[in-house]
Amino acid sequence: MTRAERQAQTRDRLIEVAKEMFLRDGYAATSLDKVALEAGFSKGAVYSNFRGKEELCLAVLDVIHAEKVQGVLDAFTQDADLDTKLKAFAAWAHQGLGEPRWTALEVEFGAVARHNDWVAAELVKRHREIREAIGQLVAHVAEESGLSTTVPVQTVATALLSLGVGLGALRSLDSHVDVDVFTDVMRVLVRD
Amino acid sequence: MTRAERQAQTRDRLIEVAKEMFLRDGYAATSLDKVALEAGFSKGAVYSNFRGKEELCLAVLDVIHAEKVQGVLDAFTQDADLDTKLKAFAAWAHQGLGEPRWTALEVEFGAVARHNDWVAAELVKRHREIREAIGQLVAHVAEESGLSTTVPVQTVATALLSLGVGLGALRSLDSHVDVDVFTDVMRVLVRD
Repeated sequence: MTRAERQAQTRDRLIEVAKEMFLRDGYAATSLDKVALEAGFSKGAVYSNFRGKEELCLAVLDVIHAEKVQGVLDAFTQDADLDTKLKAFAAWAHQGLGEPRWTALEVEFGAVARHNDWVAAELVKRHREIREAIGQLVAHVAEESGLSTTVPVQTVATALLSLGVGLGALRSLDSHVDVDVFTDVMRVLVRD
Repeated sequence: MTRAERQAQTRDRLIEVAKEMFLRDGYAATSLDKVALEAGFSKGAVYSNFRGKEELCLAVLDVIHAEKVQGVLDAFTQDADLDTKLKAFAAWAHQGLGEPRWTALEVEFGAVARHNDWVAAELVKRHREIREAIGQLVAHVAEESGLSTTVPVQTVATALLSLGVGLGALRSLDSHVDVDVFTDVMRVLVRD
């Protein structure tokens, strides 16, 4: 292994351990020192990879978001009709939307952003990227199904991201929140 | 003034002062003692009205939510056609949705709910009440305009509450988030 490969491996391992700790203990209770200890690396190894806890948490959230996005892509890029795709998406939403530990971390880190301009700017950058990706996916799905959106595709993208954030926040506290609302609204926004 | 009237007046004044402090300084930085000092009451007066900071913050959020709900009711119960009502609602959303200090308080208190079952249960109770009120308003507006909802009214209510929560959370960090999405989606959910 080259030095660069070793460094990448250390970084991945730190993110993996930090992900478990942030989800298990929350943002406030986790520290770079504890992550280093649990991962079996020196503090130096952590600090040479991440400038601080904020940066490490963003890296963890990037991994979680990539998994979530992959689940949505898997649902919508399978070789099947739109109804089957929407059912797979509904199953994804049932399984993961508003998952309490994940949502708690997002909310706790969202509160950090109120007092930290750098975190706020990094979160905004990510929200815009996710919204862009949703817009592209919606346009693609609509086109291949011969459907169109009832409002501009950017409006659909903002609506779906907001709906996901809001439904997740509500459902993480109240498991009775009807998560099928997500798919129902999607069917209304993309139709004949 | 009777004793009960004096008590109610003290309570209202404490909530008013606490509202300013929670919005200005955030949840963590505010304490019952500081509120008592700023309001010019004894600590005893605060503690005889509120069992703790959580209960005081819930009372503050109730006042804020009542103001928000009143704004929506004002938009939709005016004597005007649906388009005028929706424009008034859009103006309400532009003015207040995702207002940074309010949203920061909701997010910070939302994080408290993750570690406090009583707070979580109280928030869930309120979310259900607000969803119920939205459902009744949507049914009323649709009926008097001779329109119907494209999905069941309970689905519309959950969608609109989630959309409001999500759009507010995103917009509080990113003032470029297009808040007209709220009205656009409403038009699609309630139509001919």
